[in-house]
Amino acid sequence: MTASVPADVISRLKAVLGEGGWSQDPERLAPKLVEWRDRWQGNTPFLALPKTTAEVAAVIGVCAESGTPVVPQGGNTGLVGGQIPLGEILLSTERMRAIRDVDAFDDVLVAEAGVTLQAAHEAALAKGRRFPLDIASQGTATIGGIISTNAGGTAVLRYGATRELVLGLEAVLPNGEIWNGLKRLRKDNTGYDLKQLLIGAEGTLGVVTAASLKLFPVLVSRATAIAAVENPEAAIQLLARAKDAAGGAVEAFELMGRRGIDFVLKNIPNQRDPLSEIHPWYVLIEIASGEPGAAESAMERLLGAALEDGLVRDAAVAQSQAQAQAFWSVRENQSPGQKPEGATWKHDVSVPVSRVADFLNQATARMEALVPGARVTAFGHVGDGNIHYDVIRPDGGDDAAHSALRGEGSRIVHDIVASMGGSISAEHGLGSMKTEEARRYKSPVEVAALSAIRLSLDPKRIMNPRVHF
Amino acid sequence: MTASVPADVISRLKAVLGEGGWSQDPERLAPKLVEWRDRWQGNTPFLALPKTTAEVAAVIGVCAESGTPVVPQGGNTGLVGGQIPLGEILLSTERMRAIRDVDAFDDVLVAEAGVTLQAAHEAALAKGRRFPLDIASQGTATIGGIISTNAGGTAVLRYGATRELVLGLEAVLPNGEIWNGLKRLRKDNTGYDLKQLLIGAEGTLGVVTAASLKLFPVLVSRATAIAAVENPEAAIQLLARAKDAAGGAVEAFELMGRRGIDFVLKNIPNQRDPLSEIHPWYVLIEIASGEPGAAESAMERLLGAALEDGLVRDAAVAQSQAQAQAFWSVRENQSPGQKPEGATWKHDVSVPVSRVADFLNQATARMEALVPGARVTAFGHVGDGNIHYDVIRPDGGDDAAHSALRGEGSRIVHDIVASMGGSISAEHGLGSMKTEEARRYKSPVEVAALSAIRLSLDPKRIMNPRVHF
Repeated sequence: MTASVPADVISRLKAVLGEGGWSQDPERLAPKLVEWRDRWQGNTPFLALPKTTAEVAAVIGVCAESGTPVVPQGGNTGLVGGQIPLGEILLSTERMRAIRDVDAFDDVLVAEAGVTLQAAHEAALAKGRRFPLDIASQGTATIGGIISTNAGGTAVLRYGATRELVLGLEAVLPNGEIWNGLKRLRKDNTGYDLKQLLIGAEGTLGVVTAASLKLFPVLVSRATAIAAVENPEAAIQLLARAKDAAGGAVEAFELMGRRGIDFVLKNIPNQRDPLSEIHPWYVLIEIASGEPGAAESAMERLLGAALEDGLVRDAAVAQSQAQAQAFWSVRENQSPGQKPEGATWKHDVSVPVSRVADFLNQATARMEALVPGARVTAFGHVGDGNIHYDVIRPDGGDDAAHSALRGEGSRIVHDIVASMGGSISAEHGLGSMKTEEARRYKSPVEVAALSAIRLSLDPKRIMNPRVHF
Repeated sequence: MTASVPADVISRLKAVLGEGGWSQDPERLAPKLVEWRDRWQGNTPFLALPKTTAEVAAVIGVCAESGTPVVPQGGNTGLVGGQIPLGEILLSTERMRAIRDVDAFDDVLVAEAGVTLQAAHEAALAKGRRFPLDIASQGTATIGGIISTNAGGTAVLRYGATRELVLGLEAVLPNGEIWNGLKRLRKDNTGYDLKQLLIGAEGTLGVVTAASLKLFPVLVSRATAIAAVENPEAAIQLLARAKDAAGGAVEAFELMGRRGIDFVLKNIPNQRDPLSEIHPWYVLIEIASGEPGAAESAMERLLGAALEDGLVRDAAVAQSQAQAQAFWSVRENQSPGQKPEGATWKHDVSVPVSRVADFLNQATARMEALVPGARVTAFGHVGDGNIHYDVIRPDGGDDAAHSALRGEGSRIVHDIVASMGGSISAEHGLGSMKTEEARRYKSPVEVAALSAIRLSLDPKRIMNPRVHF
C-alpha cells in the first residue's frame, strides 16, 4: 500500500496538532517504521504526536470524518506488526507520559498511554506497591501498548495478564469521541465491560489514552530455584505440586530445554550453567509470599519431596539476589541466545497445561521429520500452558532454505495446537502477521461476531484496518 | 406488557423442545415468575426447558427468526429483576446440570449453565481444588446466572469477581448460533475477548450454556478475626495494613456498623455479640495461606500492632472453625437481620476504597436530614469499596411513608456515589430495576457504544429486551 492521504486531510491534522505535534521528517519517522526484529518495514505519510487526549480525539475525529486509516503505536515493541503502518497515518503516544496518580489506599496507578511499563513499576514502588506485569521489553513498552495487546509475561500465573490488571480506561473511540472510563473500582456491574473489549483489540477499536492499573503489595519473602526434570510430563507434575505446596504463591514456573540453555551458554557472555550436570529439561520456579520465610520454606518442601521421590533430578535454590538474577538471566536469554544459530520459525502458542508434554512430543516429532536436523528450542510460561516453540535450521544449514519452509512448518505446529484447543497466539496478538492465520482456526460464528462488533464502533474501518477481522 | 407471542411460534418452540422440554402449567411456572424478595412478579406465555445446547440454539433460532423476545433465567436469585419475564418467553437452564470435566492439572472445572454454584464448589473440592466465588445464594444460584451477572461476593478482594474466574464460555448468540468458546487456556490473544462481553451482559447478548472456570489450591492456613474500630477511616487504614502484613493473602475484609450487629442479635436466633464491649464499627478479616501457620501469624502481626497503637479498639481471632463460622454468621445475617425492622431503601454501591469513609459520612448526613430518625445500616465488602447501604425507616415509623421517599433518597445516594467516581450497581447488575437509573450516570458516549454493540449482535433486540441499553 502506498500513501494516499489527501493533502487537505494532512493540513487539517497539522492544524489540530499544532507546532511540534506532528512530523513528516524521514529521520524522525524511521525508528517507528521498523519492528525491532527487522521483520516489518512500514511507511506513512504523517506521524501524529498528540500530547493530550483532546488532541488524540481531534486526530481521530479528522480521520473518522475523512475515512482516513490510522495505526496507533506505543513503544514499538510488538512482535506481530500490529503497530507498523503501511501507508496509514501513524499516531504515536510517545508524548503522553504523565503518571496522573498513584494511590496506595485504592491500590491504583493512573498513567497515560505513553508511560513506559518500567516507569509505572518505579512509580508504584515509590509508594510501596507493585505493578506485577513483567515483560522483557518493559523499558520501552508503554501502558497503551500493553493494554492494546493484552501483554502477558512471566507473572501471569499468579496475577493474570494485562486484562486482569486494568481497573479503568480512557480512550478515544473510532468516531473521535472521548470515552472516560477511567474508574478505579473493584466492582462495577452497570453494563457490558467496554474496557475489556478495548484490551487486546490492538488499536482496532480506538486509541487507549490512559489507564488505571491495579497495584499489589510488595512481597517480603521470595525464593527462586532451578530444578532439572526428565521430561515435560515431570515438569507438569511438579507444577501441580508447586501450586499445592505454595497455595497460590507460585509467581513463575518457566520451562527450558537443554538445547536452549546450551545456546545461552555458547552465545551470551557471562552466563553460568545453573546445575553442575547436564539434564534434558529445566524449570525455573519462583515463589513469593507476604509472610517472612514462607516462600523459602514452601520451596524447600516442594523440592525436598520431589528430589526424594525422583520427580526432580537435581535442583538449586538461589542463595542470593545475584544468584536469582543469574537463573533469570538464563531464562531471559533464551530468545537472544538462539539468534546467532540462524533462521528460526517462531511460535507463541498455548495449550491446556495438561497437554503441554503431548504438544511438545507431537510437534517435535513432526518438525524433525519435516526438516531432518532441525533444532527445536522450546521454552516459556509452562504454568500458563504458553510455549515459545522455536524451530531453528539445522546446524550449518541454509537460512533461506529453512525460511522457505516456514509456512509449511508453522501450519503443522498450529494445527496440532488447534487440535488440543490451544491458541496460535498466546500473548503476542494477531497484528498484521497472524490475522489471516487466525481466521483458519476461529469458528465462522466467532469471526462474524467479532467483525460485527468492530463494524458497530468503526463503520468505516479506519482503526488499524489490516489487523483483526 | 401482556403475552402476545403468536400461536405458531409457541407450536414451533414445543416442536423443537419435545416432551418434557417446556411448560405452560401455572403451578410449574409460578416460582420462576417471582423474585425471592417479592419485589418482582412476572408473567410468560411459555417456559422453555432445554436440556442441551442444541435445544437452546433451536429455541433462540425460533425467537430470532420470529422476533420473539426471550428472557433467560438461572437459579432466579437475581435482585434487580433481570431474570423475570414480563410477557417474554422464559428460558430456564434448570435441566442443563452436567459437570463436564474437572481437571486438577489444568485447574479447570467445566460446567453447564444450570449447575448450582454449590455443586461446582463440591466438584472442585472432590479433586482437591477450590472455586473461590462465594455468595450467599450459592445453593440456588447457577453457573449461567453468576456469569451473566458477573457475581461478586466475599472473596473478590483476592480472587476477583466472576469476570476474572472464567477461562471459556459456550453460548448461544442472539442469532441462534452456537459459539463454542469453551477453552481452558490461561493466555489467548487472538481477537476481542468475546466471553468478557457476555459476562455481566445479563442475558442481553445470548444464553450462556456452559463455562470453564478457574480453580485454585485449597489453602491449609486460615485465620478469621473480628476487629472493632472507631470509624470507617480506621477500617480503611487497617485494610491497607492488612494487605501489607499478609502480602496478598487477605481473602475477606468486611465492614459492619454497630446498628447492623444489633439487628442481627435482636432478630436472628443463636447469634453472639463477637466482642465483649460495644463499638461503633467492626471489620471481619480473613487471611488464608498455603504455608502452614502463615495466616495465623500474619493476623497476629496485624492485630498486635493495630491494638498497640490504638487503630483497633478490640479484636478477637477465631480459635476454632465454629467460632469463625459464628463471626461469618453475624456478617451473613446483616441483610436478614434488618428485614423485620421495616421498609428499607437498599443500595449496592461501590466507590474507590479511599472514599468509603467520605461516602458513608456524606450519605448518612443526607439520609438523616431527609428522614429524621432513619436508621442507616451499612455493611459490605469494604476491601472492594463495595457497600450495601441500607436506609431503614425510623423505629416505629410508617412503611408506606418511607417507601414513598425511596426514589428521592436513592437519587441522593447515587448522586454522591457518582460524584466520587463510583458505581450504582457494584455487584447486582442493572436488570429491569436499575437500567433507567444507570442511564443517568453513564456518559452518552458509553451508552451509544454499548447500544451499538448490542444491536450488532441482536438487531431485533430479542434477548432480555427491557434490560440494559
